[in-house]
Amino acid sequence: MDQSALDVPPKEAISEPSVAVTLYVCVTCLAGADREAEPRPGRRLHDALVDAQRGQDTPPSFRIVAVECLSNCDHGCSAALTGPGRWSYIYGDLGQASVDDLLAGASRYAATADGLVPWRERPMIFRKGVIARIPPSSPPV
Amino acid sequence: MDQSALDVPPKEAISEPSVAVTLYVCVTCLAGADREAEPRPGRRLHDALVDAQRGQDTPPSFRIVAVECLSNCDHGCSAALTGPGRWSYIYGDLGQASVDDLLAGASRYAATADGLVPWRERPMIFRKGVIARIPPSSPPV
Repeated sequence: MDQSALDVPPKEAISEPSVAVTLYVCVTCLAGADREAEPRPGRRLHDALVDAQRGQDTPPSFRIVAVECLSNCDHGCSAALTGPGRWSYIYGDLGQASVDDLLAGASRYAATADGLVPWRERPMIFRKGVIARIPPSSPPV
Repeated sequence: MDQSALDVPPKEAISEPSVAVTLYVCVTCLAGADREAEPRPGRRLHDALVDAQRGQDTPPSFRIVAVECLSNCDHGCSAALTGPGRWSYIYGDLGQASVDDLLAGASRYAATADGLVPWRERPMIFRKGVIARIPPSSPPV
């Protein structure tokens, strides 16, 4: 697939503007569904996450942002956690059942300075569903 | 596997200190080798990249940094490209034969402002070997 058409920066920031941590959710993920599926499973996961976050009593500690393609198409639905100075993580094989764990795991991630949540505090979907992680994009030293 | 023991920040910066883009190379990747292999295939890939970069005539446009575990163990050897304000990419199924393409692809990545190299300018290992990509960890907006 020529991905150049998908190389557009994500623009759809949800929730608090002052929050540094972002949960990117791929809205083009098919997760085995037909290409004509509308809305796509990725979009449905994104929307469910936004709804669930809005329903929480506490102010959000991370933004939920829709993005087109995280290049993890074989293991969609996909989501990625990132923030300045933090390790970034990408997770796969997600679905509607992952919403609560995703929100809980992202909150724990946001509470760290470096993105490294102790292993036993990570939701199971973060332990089993991690596709890869990337160290911080540190500034010049 | 309990990865907490591996959650140490990468410290081994190679080459120019003023360079913002980093090519992280997992030095614990086994790529199918025996766990007792010494050096591990990931370490050998890292060292070959450093040697090849040092042998180039032009000043390096990115750092090569050793890191322990990119959580892509099933598709090692693994490497990740990242830089402030840029999309990050992680690549898998790399080996000694990938050295030249990795250096060329990382140079093209470093020449961009956002990490998005036009599809047709990406080395084949970047097109075929991409495991995932993550949008920039943008600061608060």
